[in-house]
Amino acid sequence: MIILGIDPGIAIVGYGIIECNGNHSKVIDYGCITTDADIFFPERLKIVYNGVIDIIDRYNPEEVALEELFFNKNVKTAIKVGHARGVEILACVNKNLPIYEYTPLQIKQSVVGYGRAEKRQVQEMVKILLNLKEIPKPDDAADALAVAICHGSSLNFKESFRMK
Amino acid sequence: MIILGIDPGIAIVGYGIIECNGNHSKVIDYGCITTDADIFFPERLKIVYNGVIDIIDRYNPEEVALEELFFNKNVKTAIKVGHARGVEILACVNKNLPIYEYTPLQIKQSVVGYGRAEKRQVQEMVKILLNLKEIPKPDDAADALAVAICHGSSLNFKESFRMK
Repeated sequence: MIILGIDPGIAIVGYGIIECNGNHSKVIDYGCITTDADIFFPERLKIVYNGVIDIIDRYNPEEVALEELFFNKNVKTAIKVGHARGVEILACVNKNLPIYEYTPLQIKQSVVGYGRAEKRQVQEMVKILLNLKEIPKPDDAADALAVAICHGSSLNFKESFRMK
Repeated sequence: MIILGIDPGIAIVGYGIIECNGNHSKVIDYGCITTDADIFFPERLKIVYNGVIDIIDRYNPEEVALEELFFNKNVKTAIKVGHARGVEILACVNKNLPIYEYTPLQIKQSVVGYGRAEKRQVQEMVKILLNLKEIPKPDDAADALAVAICHGSSLNFKESFRMK
């Protein structure tokens, strides 16, 4: 099963593609879609949408896992990233992919085994679980791989996390 | 100039199409795109996106005016509506339409002449300015017509409101 993990964003959208067979996962690719803050916001959304479509076309994932958004402080930023996450989801649904979402807590629990793990611990585990030489850079790509791993390891009870 | 006004939302997206010549505006159509809460969220985004594309194809607007989102209370709702507004903007930019946005304050100021006007006063002015027999229903359609009127009357200094 090929899984696309997405760390939603507008300036940087992290993506990670893994192939998951039972308890074993291997990385296929990872990286980022970036949009410059100087570009008109509607155009940035277009770049993000087309970027996700391109990744899907290139790697043919079977399922998508997205991190849920949590913002306590800045509602304005939350709304802006919400716009971007909306077009990221649209790209996946337009490609007929089932979409799953996980909270940061669920991802940490799944990848590190501890819901309050530090970012660095998650990245270290991503490196180990995918048998990589280095921690994937940038952080957004590592986060995207983490959500993909999280989905991969929850495939047995995935229905509970399907986006409704 | 044909203007499409959009009142962003996920359950109900209001739209209003007006033709604007100098100080005179006439209504072409208005209504709503609705998505049932029972439908999977990604599918709802798809319905909203396709709905906006259909409206643009049907009425060929030259410019789009959207209401800005303001939420102080519920960040979760803000993010959800942000997702929907993202795909609404994407539909417009994919149709190569210039997009403008206005705050509720600017809309009230423009339509009623008073930034703290009540919802009912705005609707009453929409009815009068567009020479309608009744206040447009539902509220979301009336709000969409209001933002279209607001954009129409600010055409002389519109560059300042172009979405960046």
